[in-house]
This record gives sequence, C-alpha cells and structure tokens, in this order.
Amino acid sequence: MSMPIEEWVKEIRAGNARALARAITAVENRAPESRQLLRQLFPHSGRASIIGLTGAPGSGKSTLADQLAREFRKLGRSVGIVAVDPTSPFSGGAILGDRIRMQRHHADRGIYIRSMATRGALGGLAAATAEVAMVLDASGREVVLIETVGVGQDEIDIVRLADITLVVLVPGMGDDVQSIKAGIMEIADIFVINKSERDGAAQLERGIRTLLATGRPGADEKPWMPPIIKTVASEGKGIAELAQAIADFQQHLQKTGLGARRRVENWRRRLLEMLRSELMHRLARESLSDEAARRLAAEIAAGRKDPYSAVEDILAGIGIKNRTI
Amino acid sequence: MSMPIEEWVKEIRAGNARALARAITAVENRAPESRQLLRQLFPHSGRASIIGLTGAPGSGKSTLADQLAREFRKLGRSVGIVAVDPTSPFSGGAILGDRIRMQRHHADRGIYIRSMATRGALGGLAAATAEVAMVLDASGREVVLIETVGVGQDEIDIVRLADITLVVLVPGMGDDVQSIKAGIMEIADIFVINKSERDGAAQLERGIRTLLATGRPGADEKPWMPPIIKTVASEGKGIAELAQAIADFQQHLQKTGLGARRRVENWRRRLLEMLRSELMHRLARESLSDEAARRLAAEIAAGRKDPYSAVEDILAGIGIKNRTI
Repeated sequence: MSMPIEEWVKEIRAGNARALARAITAVENRAPESRQLLRQLFPHSGRASIIGLTGAPGSGKSTLADQLAREFRKLGRSVGIVAVDPTSPFSGGAILGDRIRMQRHHADRGIYIRSMATRGALGGLAAATAEVAMVLDASGREVVLIETVGVGQDEIDIVRLADITLVVLVPGMGDDVQSIKAGIMEIADIFVINKSERDGAAQLERGIRTLLATGRPGADEKPWMPPIIKTVASEGKGIAELAQAIADFQQHLQKTGLGARRRVENWRRRLLEMLRSELMHRLARESLSDEAARRLAAEIAAGRKDPYSAVEDILAGIGIKNRTI
Repeated sequence: MSMPIEEWVKEIRAGNARALARAITAVENRAPESRQLLRQLFPHSGRASIIGLTGAPGSGKSTLADQLAREFRKLGRSVGIVAVDPTSPFSGGAILGDRIRMQRHHADRGIYIRSMATRGALGGLAAATAEVAMVLDASGREVVLIETVGVGQDEIDIVRLADITLVVLVPGMGDDVQSIKAGIMEIADIFVINKSERDGAAQLERGIRTLLATGRPGADEKPWMPPIIKTVASEGKGIAELAQAIADFQQHLQKTGLGARRRVENWRRRLLEMLRSELMHRLARESLSDEAARRLAAEIAAGRKDPYSAVEDILAGIGIKNRTI
C-alpha cells in the first residue's frame, strides 16, 4: 500500500475494512511500515474493552466468542475478534476460516474476525496479539475479544493482556477440576461452563467453587469472587448472563481502580517484551546473522568454543560491554 | 559455598551429591557464581544422552521416567532426572517430592532426581532446564531424562533440547488422537502408549499410525518412523522394549548424522536464548529498573507517552542507536 501512513490511519479509523486488514497483516509480518503505523494508531487506542477467552481445545470458545459478539452487537457495540492458536504452524491468518465465521454473522460489518498463529521465535505471539488488538481498538472497535486455544503459558501470556479474562471449561473433559491448572485459576475473572447441558456440569461447578474457596493468590484489597456462568453457546443459552457478568466485572474494574492497575502492569510487560524483541532483531540484523549463529553453534556443539564466551563476544560486537559480575 | 569454583567443579565431577545439588540451585537462581561454574563445567559436558519425555498431565510420565531410570541402572548407566512443570508457580525445586521419588529407588546414588518450576519472565525455563541438564551431564550422569508436564509450546521448547523425544499418550484421554497436536507429532521420536492395559489402546495406536502415515513435516534424508511402544509403567511392563527402542534411535542418530545436526540446532537456539536473556538482564540492571519500567508503563497507559518512542529512548540509553528502518 503506497498510501501515506496518515492517510492509512484515517482509512482505518473511518472503518475501511481493507485498510484494517492490511494494517493487521503489516503488524503480523513486522513489515517496515508497521512501526510507524502503530505509533500513529496508539493515540487512538485505549478505549476498547479487551476481553480474553481461554480454555482447553474443544471447549467451544469460538462459538462462545461469536455468540458474545452477537450479544454486544445487540447492545450497539462494534466488535473485533482475534483468534490465536499458538500451536498452529500457519502464519498470516487463516483467512478462509475467518471469512466463514464472518459469514455466520451475515456479513455484519460491526463484527471483524481475524486469526493469528505462530510468529517466529524472535517475535513473540503475545506481543503480536497485543498489537493487533491495539489496531482494532484504534480502529474504533468497542469490544475486542481475544480467544486462544489451549491453556499453556503462551495462552496465559496472551489473555493476560486483556482487561477481563474468561476461562471456559466443559463438563467431563479430562479430570475436570484437575485440568484447571494453577496459572489458569489465577487469571480467571469469570468462569464459563460451556456445553453445560452435559452430565457433570454441577460436579464441575462444585469443583471450581472448592478451588475458589481455598483462596486465590494475589487477591486485591477488594477481592472479586469470579462468578461461574453456565452456557450452551451453540444454542445461545446463558450468553446474556455472561454479558451481564462481564459488565459487572467492568464496573468492579473501574470502582476499585483495578482496571487502571492492570493496564499499567500490562504495559510494563509489553514494554519489556518490545525491548526484548527489538534487541533480538537488531542483533540478528547487525551482528549475528543466521549463518553466523549456525557456525557458532557448530563450534559449541563440537566443544571447541564455550557458549558463555561466545555470548560475551557477540554482545561486545554490538557495543555492550562485559558483564560486571 | 565459599569453595573456589575449581574445587566445586571437582566435587561435582567426583559425584558429591551436595555439590551437585548446590550447583543446580545456583543455576536455577542465576546466582552470580553460576556463570563461572557453567563455563567450567561446559568442557565436561556433551557425553550424556539427553532424553525428553512429554505428554498430557496424568499420562504417568514420572512413573515411566522412574522405570526407565531403573532399566538404565540395570545396564550399568547412571541417571539424572529433571522434572519440569512450567505451570507450577513454585520455584527452587520441590525438594520433598524429589526425596520421596528418590526413596523409591532405595536411595540408589546412581539416580538423581530434581524438580524445576517457573523461572521468572526474564529467565526462560527452557534455558534453565538446558543448563541443569548440562550440569548433570558434566557431573558424569550418562543418561539425563527431562520430563515435562503438559503439551504446550513451553514443553515443546524444553524437550526440543533433548537428543531423543518420547511422547507419552494414554488410551481414552480426551479425544485421543485429536489431542496429539501438530507440534507434538513433529517432535516425537518414539511414541509411548502408557497404561496400555486400558480400553482404547489399540484404537489410539491406529490413530497414531494414521497420523504418521499422512506424513511428517521436516523428514530427514533417511526418515525414521517413530515406533509405538506400549507400556504399563506402574507394573514395569514394556520398559525393556522402550529402552531398546531408545537404543535403536540412538544408533539412527549416529548413523545418519542426525544427532550431530540436532545438537548444532539446539545450540543455535540456546545461543539466541542466552543472548536474549543476557540483554534483558543488563537492560534491567543498567537502564530500566523495575521502578522505572513501572513509571513508564503508567505514562503509556495514561496515553501520555507512546511505547514505540519509549523503547527507542531506552535503547539509546544503553548505547544502541536508532532503528534504521
């Protein structure tokens, strides 16, 4: 797109879906112009509610996200959905799948869906997701839903960027409560038991309550007890209740100042991630090409060079002096 | 430990379990002396077979690792086990659990077990695991088993450091073959169906075979078809067969040169990870204290400063000039 950045930003802000799609692609691919674009979009961001959805594969997160989007549309709010799959080897968005999902919304232009997958080792998928969410936010989307597949550390890092985190569980999957790992318990603001018509929903709910009763680490001064909402997303059941629980939590975020504190903490983490990523890119470009890294690795594997000296040599090469301790 | 590093290395190499335990603790905690220690241990490393075990929680990986260790002991080889749980919030090793596990080996000094958990955001658990494995290797352990809980990207990063990767599955867990995600299929050198006396073992085996038949990406010039070994680890069944499959694969690694190529690739990844981690540490120490990062994040969250300019200011502060593109 040879359009000047200012023009591009204007188009994105005016709701031009093509301009938005190209912006997201540029950000995902770290295109040279993406930095300037993000810098100019930033002042327009910070208005959207960012909602993270996570849970085991097969828990029906996509259907739930679609239903929630529809609910927000009823309330007159525009929605962006970012679907992230850290285990997928495909980059650049599963465009076809996104189109099919958008079709289900009868091409409602108030709902925009975009898939993301692994961004190379240097990039960081959480950072890319945060940037894409910011682009949607700056484009005027009032709600940004980030859905992730799986419940590992990647997913935790991704949904942590949200203002509100929903953890989706399903009756009878694995050992139920055992599958709610420690990290997940801490990040859940709201639990959703989806496919709640299935056997074991009550048992799962009891399990969650027991876990909640044993105390959550890092409780705030005015603690929030995560509600447990039962849904059957495929039939639209429980979605209005879930939207209400989200609204309640948003009030809590505002009243207690927790929302502001979270955003500061999120920016702190993103800042570190941006620095890390930026440093590694410069390193790769300026003093450690792929070829040089491979050659050095071969020397180390053969025992001819120790990796600790190698690291110091490379750092010295970009003007960073030796470790003092 | 006020012992000079040379002395410490000597004690570790002589089989002093206390010296070894303290070395691992120092490495886990990034103690100031750990760098020097690792540098001096490095020339003694590279001899052990590093075996990674991964699989869903509840698949019996610990029992399997213990049984494998016993099998290797019968063959006269000393063993170190590193048990890693990326989702656990506890750092510093679950000493009590390790002791209990070691007791089961009748305090056989030929088996050493050590748990690891999350190391802060700056550190990287995969890097720490690699370092601990290297310490065990340098201490003279002939086999190092790395077992991880879960099947996310963290776990993949960890077991990738191994020469040989075992993926442990259990009949009837989740949707069986569906739970074998793309990333896991690629890293498995050997599949283990543990608890194979259960219903669904044959079905699971068929599922794996079907997946294998559809082709694995990144096949070598002389492709290895991962065998599927059925075990009942709690009763010691199938363990000898598994040890044989491991020996077969080791031969394959050597004959085809794949082993050497893997080690080079592993070192390349570790080198990048070490650089990343080192850069972030220096940054944190020299120009971006926790306090400064938090203050900056608050400015950004309030929309008073854009994060992209902030990053460039910080990089300029450690003497790295502006991005050229």
